[in-house]
Amino acid sequence: MTKKLLFLFDTDAVPSVFDTVVGYDGGADHITGYGNVTPENVGALVDGTIYTRGGSEKKSTAIFVGGGNMAAGEAVLKAVKKRFFGPFRVSTMLDSNGSNTTAAAGVALVQKAAGSLQGKKAVVLAGTGPVGMRSAALLAQEGASVVLCGRSLDKAQAAADQINQRFKVAISAAATPDAASRAAIVKGQNLVFSAGAIGIELLSEADWKEEASIEFIADYNAQPPLGFGGIDAMDKAKERHGKIVFGALGIGGLKLKLHRACVGKLFESTETVFDAEEIYALAKSMA
Amino acid sequence: MTKKLLFLFDTDAVPSVFDTVVGYDGGADHITGYGNVTPENVGALVDGTIYTRGGSEKKSTAIFVGGGNMAAGEAVLKAVKKRFFGPFRVSTMLDSNGSNTTAAAGVALVQKAAGSLQGKKAVVLAGTGPVGMRSAALLAQEGASVVLCGRSLDKAQAAADQINQRFKVAISAAATPDAASRAAIVKGQNLVFSAGAIGIELLSEADWKEEASIEFIADYNAQPPLGFGGIDAMDKAKERHGKIVFGALGIGGLKLKLHRACVGKLFESTETVFDAEEIYALAKSMA
Amino acid sequence: MTKKLLFLFDTDAVPSVFDTVVGYDGGADHITGYGNVTPENVGALVDGTIYTRGGSEKKSTAIFVGGGNMAAGEAVLKAVKKRFFGPFRVSTMLDSNGSNTTAAAGVALVQKAAGSLQGKKAVVLAGTGPVGMRSAALLAQEGASVVLCGRSLDKAQAAADQINQRFKVAISAAATPDAASRAAIVKGQNLVFSAGAIGIELLSEADWKEEASIEFIADYNAQPPLGFGGIDAMDKAKERHGKIVFGALGIGGLKLKLHRACVGKLFESTETVFDAEEIYALAKSMA
Repeated sequence: MTKKLLFLFDTDAVPSVFDTVVGYDGGADHITGYGNVTPENVGALVDGTIYTRGGSEKKSTAIFVGGGNMAAGEAVLKAVKKRFFGPFRVSTMLDSNGSNTTAAAGVALVQKAAGSLQGKKAVVLAGTGPVGMRSAALLAQEGASVVLCGRSLDKAQAAADQINQRFKVAISAAATPDAASRAAIVKGQNLVFSAGAIGIELLSEADWKEEASIEFIADYNAQPPLGFGGIDAMDKAKERHGKIVFGALGIGGLKLKLHRACVGKLFESTETVFDAEEIYALAKSMA
Repeated sequence: MTKKLLFLFDTDAVPSVFDTVVGYDGGADHITGYGNVTPENVGALVDGTIYTRGGSEKKSTAIFVGGGNMAAGEAVLKAVKKRFFGPFRVSTMLDSNGSNTTAAAGVALVQKAAGSLQGKKAVVLAGTGPVGMRSAALLAQEGASVVLCGRSLDKAQAAADQINQRFKVAISAAATPDAASRAAIVKGQNLVFSAGAIGIELLSEADWKEEASIEFIADYNAQPPLGFGGIDAMDKAKERHGKIVFGALGIGGLKLKLHRACVGKLFESTETVFDAEEIYALAKSMA
Repeated sequence: MTKKLLFLFDTDAVPSVFDTVVGYDGGADHITGYGNVTPENVGALVDGTIYTRGGSEKKSTAIFVGGGNMAAGEAVLKAVKKRFFGPFRVSTMLDSNGSNTTAAAGVALVQKAAGSLQGKKAVVLAGTGPVGMRSAALLAQEGASVVLCGRSLDKAQAAADQINQRFKVAISAAATPDAASRAAIVKGQNLVFSAGAIGIELLSEADWKEEASIEFIADYNAQPPLGFGGIDAMDKAKERHGKIVFGALGIGGLKLKLHRACVGKLFESTETVFDAEEIYALAKSMA
C-alpha cells in the first residue's frame, strides 16, 4: 500500500503546526514540512515529489503551500506548477494561513444564511492578511461590493490591487487605524467581517448593535477578546440585536472539515489544484 | 482513529534525535520537531495544537519540551501553559536533555536501594546541566543535603539558585575545576552523582574506593571513559568496594521505560503536565 | 512492533524530498530529516540513534546520509561510523544526491548489456557531481579506462583525485567547457555517460550518432532537454544509430527499486554500511 505523503511548503520560517495537525486528520499518512520556501528554492523540492513514484503511486504524493503571506504563497504555488511537465506532476493545495479554507467556510456560511450576496455592501476589517484577502475576494465574486480595511491605506490598497488582479473584481480599500474609523466605516454596510490578529477587539458591541443596515457579522478571531464585542466565538448563525452572527469557532467547525476534506482529495489524482475557487465550491457543497 | 501527534519544541537549534526515537517508542503515531523554540515564538506553534481538534480528539495532540538548557526549557514550558485557556489546552512534558526522566530514574533507583535519603550527604559532580540540576533537586526533595559542583563557582551557584527557587530547597554550590578538587569534595559524602559530558572521567577509582562515607555512586555517562573510574556502565546496584554502584546503562533501562511511559500517558488527557515532581513519582512506582 | 525509524542526515540546508519519498517506499515507518549536517554536529544526532533502543529493537533505527556534495557526505559517514562503539551502532547508507544508487543502476545496466567493461574507454560528461563521480568510480572498478569531465580542469581533477584515492583507481580529468570540447572528447570512446544538471543538453545528436567507436550511451538527466540530443528519457537498452542507449527514466526504474531495496535492508541488522561497493553489488544482482 503506497503511503500518502504530504509535503508542506511553508513560506514562513517554520512549517505550520496547524497545517500539520489538519493534514494528518485529513488523511495524510506522513507529513514533511519545509520552512522559508521561495519560488527560487522550491524547484529541487518539487523534483523530489515528481521523480520518485510511477504510475498510480504518484497520486499518493501531494504538495500543500502555506505560510503567513498570501502573495508569497501564490508565488510559490506558481513556481511549483511551472516545475511540473507531462505526467511529472502531483496534486497541490494553497492555503496560506488557512486563507482559502477559513475564508471559504466563512463566506459560504454567510452566503447560505443570506440566500444571495448579490449587491450587498461588505466590509472586511483588518483585511490585509491571507484570510481577510480571500474573504474579500470571495465576497466580491458572490456579487458583493467590498471594502478592504487595514491600518494604513497603502497596505490595504496593495492588498485590494492584488485581489482585483487575481480575481478580476473591484474591491476598494480604506484606512481604519482606530476604533473611531472602524465604527465609521461599518455604517451603511450589510456584511461586516473581521480578520484581525487573535485577541484584539476591532469593533465594540456599541458600534455595531444599533447599526440597522448590518445584517451579518463574521469573526475569525477565536481567542478573547474577540474581533467583535458582544458576540461569542461559538456563535453560528446566532441572532444578536437582529443581526446574524458567526464567531470564529462557529466558522471553525466547517473550516476544519473543509480543510481535512481538501487534503483527502489531494490523494485522488495527480492533477488537482486546490485554490480559492475550488475550495469555495467545496465549502458551499458542505455548508 | 485519531492519530497521536507529538510536537517536540526544542530549545536547541535542531530537535533531538533521542527524544524522537523515544517518543515513537512511547506510542506517538507521528512526531514533528521544531528547533530554536523560545517563549517568544512558541505561541503560534501552541495555537496549532489547541485549535485543530475538538472534543475527545484533542487528547491525541501533545507537546514535549526539550533541549540542552534547563532554564530555557522551563521558560518555554511556562510560555506554552500561558497560551492555553479554557478547554484550549493539550498535555505537555518537560524533559530538557532527558533531565527529568534521567534524574528521576537515577534518584529513584538510589532511593529504593537506600530505603531513605533523609539526612544523607550528597554531591552532584558536573551538575550544572539539566540532568545534574534535576538530580540535585530530587535528592534535596528526598531530604538529602546536596552540593552541586561545576567548573566555575558562578555557574554552579546560578544553577543552585535556580533549583532552590523552583523547588524550595537549599542546595549549595562548589567549584570543582580539576581532579584534585573533585577528589576533595567527595570526602565525607554518602551519595556521589556524576552528570558530566559523555566520555570524560570525573573521579578516578582511587578517589572513591577507600572513601568510607560513600554508600552510593550513580553515573549518567554511558560512553567510555565513564564518569567514575572502576565502574561499568551496566552496573545496576552492583557492589564495588563496599559501595552500591549505578552506571549510566544500569540507570538507562528505567530511564527509557519511564520516558516511554510518560509519552504514552500524555495522550490520555489534555490536562497532564509532566515535570520533575510528576515524573519522579512515576519513577518511584516503576523502580 | 518496533517502528522502523530512518534518520536522514543531509549535508545540504534542507533534507531531500526525494530521499524522503523513496525512504518511505523502501519501508521506513517514519523518516526524520536534518539539514546542514557536518562531521562536527553529527555526534549528538548519532547518540540519539544508538542509546535509545536495546537488543533487537536497535536494528529498527537506521541512518541515511545524503546531500549534493559527495565529499561532504563521505565526511559525515566517516564521522557517524567513528561515533559508533561496541554494540552502540546502527545501519547506515551513503547516497549523496542519489550518487550510489543512480550510478550503480546506470553502470550495472551498461555492464549487463556489454557483458564486460574490461578495457573499454569511457567518458563521464559533467562528472564532478556525486552521480558522475560514483559512475566514474564504478566504471573504473569494472576495468574501464575513464576520463571525468567538468567545466574547469581544476574541479574535474579534484574530483578524479578524490575518486582515485577512495577507490584505488586511475581516472583522468579533462576540461570540457563547451559543446566543441565535449564533441571532441567523445571521439574514440566506447562508453559515454552524462551526469549534468537537469534540463541541459551536453552533446547534440550530430556529435554522437556517427562516432563509430561509441557503443553505449547513458544519461542521468530526466528533464528535457536531455543530456544527449536524439534520445528519449525512457530509453532502456534502446538501439539508436547502432548504439545502445539508456535514458534517465530507463535507468531510473532500477535506481528506484535499488534505492528502496537498500533502505529496506538497513533494518535487517545494526551492522550494514551501504556505500558504493555494496550498493553496486546489489544493483548487479537486480539488473
